[in-house]
Amino acid sequence: MQDDLKEEASFTLSDSDIQNIEENIEQGHEEAVETAVANLSAPDCAELLEKVSEDNRQIILEQHSSAIDPETYVELDPELCKDALEDMEAPQVAELISSLESDDALEAIENLDADFQKEVIRKLPIKSRISMEEGLNFPENSAGRLLQREFVAIPQSWTVGETIDSLRASSDDDIPEFFSDVFIVSSGSQVSGKVPLARLVRSKSQIKLETLSLEEIYSIPASMDQEEVAQIFRRENLLSAAVVNSEEKMIGVITIDDIVDVIDEEAQEDILKLAGVKDPSIYRDVIATSRSRFGWLLINLLTAIMASIVISLFDATIQQIVALAILMPIVASMGGNAGTQALTVAVRALATREVSDINSFRVIWKETIVGALNGVAFALIIGAVTFFWFKNTELALIIAISMIINLIVAGLFGAGIPIFLNRVGSDPAIASTVLLTTVTDVIGFLLFLGLAATFLI
Amino acid sequence: MQDDLKEEASFTLSDSDIQNIEENIEQGHEEAVETAVANLSAPDCAELLEKVSEDNRQIILEQHSSAIDPETYVELDPELCKDALEDMEAPQVAELISSLESDDALEAIENLDADFQKEVIRKLPIKSRISMEEGLNFPENSAGRLLQREFVAIPQSWTVGETIDSLRASSDDDIPEFFSDVFIVSSGSQVSGKVPLARLVRSKSQIKLETLSLEEIYSIPASMDQEEVAQIFRRENLLSAAVVNSEEKMIGVITIDDIVDVIDEEAQEDILKLAGVKDPSIYRDVIATSRSRFGWLLINLLTAIMASIVISLFDATIQQIVALAILMPIVASMGGNAGTQALTVAVRALATREVSDINSFRVIWKETIVGALNGVAFALIIGAVTFFWFKNTELALIIAISMIINLIVAGLFGAGIPIFLNRVGSDPAIASTVLLTTVTDVIGFLLFLGLAATFLI
Repeated sequence: MQDDLKEEASFTLSDSDIQNIEENIEQGHEEAVETAVANLSAPDCAELLEKVSEDNRQIILEQHSSAIDPETYVELDPELCKDALEDMEAPQVAELISSLESDDALEAIENLDADFQKEVIRKLPIKSRISMEEGLNFPENSAGRLLQREFVAIPQSWTVGETIDSLRASSDDDIPEFFSDVFIVSSGSQVSGKVPLARLVRSKSQIKLETLSLEEIYSIPASMDQEEVAQIFRRENLLSAAVVNSEEKMIGVITIDDIVDVIDEEAQEDILKLAGVKDPSIYRDVIATSRSRFGWLLINLLTAIMASIVISLFDATIQQIVALAILMPIVASMGGNAGTQALTVAVRALATREVSDINSFRVIWKETIVGALNGVAFALIIGAVTFFWFKNTELALIIAISMIINLIVAGLFGAGIPIFLNRVGSDPAIASTVLLTTVTDVIGFLLFLGLAATFLI
Repeated sequence: MQDDLKEEASFTLSDSDIQNIEENIEQGHEEAVETAVANLSAPDCAELLEKVSEDNRQIILEQHSSAIDPETYVELDPELCKDALEDMEAPQVAELISSLESDDALEAIENLDADFQKEVIRKLPIKSRISMEEGLNFPENSAGRLLQREFVAIPQSWTVGETIDSLRASSDDDIPEFFSDVFIVSSGSQVSGKVPLARLVRSKSQIKLETLSLEEIYSIPASMDQEEVAQIFRRENLLSAAVVNSEEKMIGVITIDDIVDVIDEEAQEDILKLAGVKDPSIYRDVIATSRSRFGWLLINLLTAIMASIVISLFDATIQQIVALAILMPIVASMGGNAGTQALTVAVRALATREVSDINSFRVIWKETIVGALNGVAFALIIGAVTFFWFKNTELALIIAISMIINLIVAGLFGAGIPIFLNRVGSDPAIASTVLLTTVTDVIGFLLFLGLAATFLI
């Protein structure tokens, strides 16, 4: 651990670097701050802005904006990026995003307040104005939102030598600074080939480019959801892919660095949705954060009240045997935990497409058996604990039976709920947890208290 | 949703393709199966093997192994890869992995049973034997395990023209099929530069390669943890990076496709650890799966029993006022849910390095305030519900006060526990959930029942 931290320190901004800059701000050493900010790379500057106090962030953004690399805004937490840009005047934002590549520019402005966004776009040079407007027309989280309009397109008839000559002669405005593949494009903008740079540089001058093309081009429709795009990149180990519009014309490329962010985002989204967190930004203010958490907690309150209603059905029984009140949370809580294990595995397997219709019943069946096996194990343990605690064989037997059944239910519903939600077209990560705990709580209390009411009294 | 599925169908194996192959297997159409398998790309073939029934998987692996692209084994779920290779003879495995690039070969054999692994390595040609043994000497999950030993190293004095000429003349054994960067390496194997292919192809023949190098090379020590490596790639948008040994000599490269897998794995790991799942493979048999889930459930049972002990302290009170038994799960469960929200945000923010020492107290403080705000909101709601349900003002007041305090506790510990665990060098994803629910359960029951025992009787 210590070693890792040391190694890492050489690459990224350290906490003490940040502290230094904050001290300089507080002591009014403006020049020192300006120099420090100007020397930071975009990712480092973004980290600085994220980690300083809110007051210091404002000072850096307002007084040292000229020292900030424009790419910093793209690297910044989206919430902070939005706040920072909305604090500026529209022409300043327009100037700032003009220096970015088209995909980064779109990313920077897509979350802005609609009116302000229009104002910014109106101040852009005509070419980027059109590309921003077209980009915003694609649905959120689609390939169209990720695409970079700068790419290398080569006519079908060219040789390796002609291609390299043309690349050497091209200006920075026409093609991106970095690219991994060259696309063979017809006069009608149809993509007919894709040549990795590694193949290009290893081939003799006179070779025809089209003979070097990869077999599969994997052209991405602009309307495709980014999660699908990420799946294709990951599966086929792509570095870049052509994006085509509805007429199959190439309109841009998607590159692996954007996909890395998507993969990150999607995995993050699942984990947060399972916990009922809609807005994960640690930079959002407390009121907005509290509000965004409220809905999920309210639904959980309803679930908890439902469980209480089940308990209230047995109030007479509980009054007679108070041990029931003591033991009843155990069955429900074990069901919840065992179900969550099955549920998490199923949600991730659905996200990575490991589960589809063809094997979904096999997965549900397996989780049910796993629930049964652990149900038996924990029935024995909790049965023994109950027997020694309350010296009551019937009570021990009843809690054991409830445990087995509730863990079977947990496995069945834990895997079944997300698979069912996915099949009917809902997002399995969002509602699964609440549905599952409702089932395991209600059945847990109902079983244990119901069996007790029937057999103990 | 439907549209996405259709779009996706053109790129990947569909369920009906898989069904066709399974039917052919079951009807004994061996040639049809052989042809179908031979025509699949490695990722498709891996998906086929993952999704068919166990019996059909065995048949494909045993009877059609010659039709399977060797890269399939690397794309396969690690659990299935291990099983498939361990069912073969060592010389067959050795031959198979000889055709893979060094990083893929290492990935294929790193999970094999130790004795069998040694036997396989002994059958390898001397060069790959040494590289496998060296690779296995690096700690699990370190950069050394990811590295590819084939890379393009160019002497400092070369020009663009010389570099391209040498690449054109090189054989496939010396350099990888695909690469994104060319490394400038001294005679002592020290890395002094890194030139992206895009820069190389755009530069004139006579230009010296070293003038094209990126400013930052980001050489990765072989011992660095893969999570750190992924963090650097993601942060700096790298496509490949040099890996150096303890003497700073370049021994290989890490490429973005391996990092995509690492990012996936790490995000997956966090979500699974939070739910207490050690072994996420949906292909593992039920006994092994049940066993791997048992430990976590046992710890949760102990937590539940602890909560029960707290309840048992108040058995006399519950017997007098049975409404307490009905309502008590609500406070505890709301604390657990609110705490899990805070906890999940903190665990992810720690994983992505958004939280470090400098802002950790700010995050804990914010979550505590969020807990307090939602605590007040839910105190009002549950107070009203309780009042109308049980017509008891004191009971309503007591549950309201317990709710506020328990949600403050939930915010404080939800963010505080993972941050504390991280600071003392533990993995915040593993133990946080159990510790948190212990706190919110125990405090939830203690508060509500304790206040009731003090003020209601």
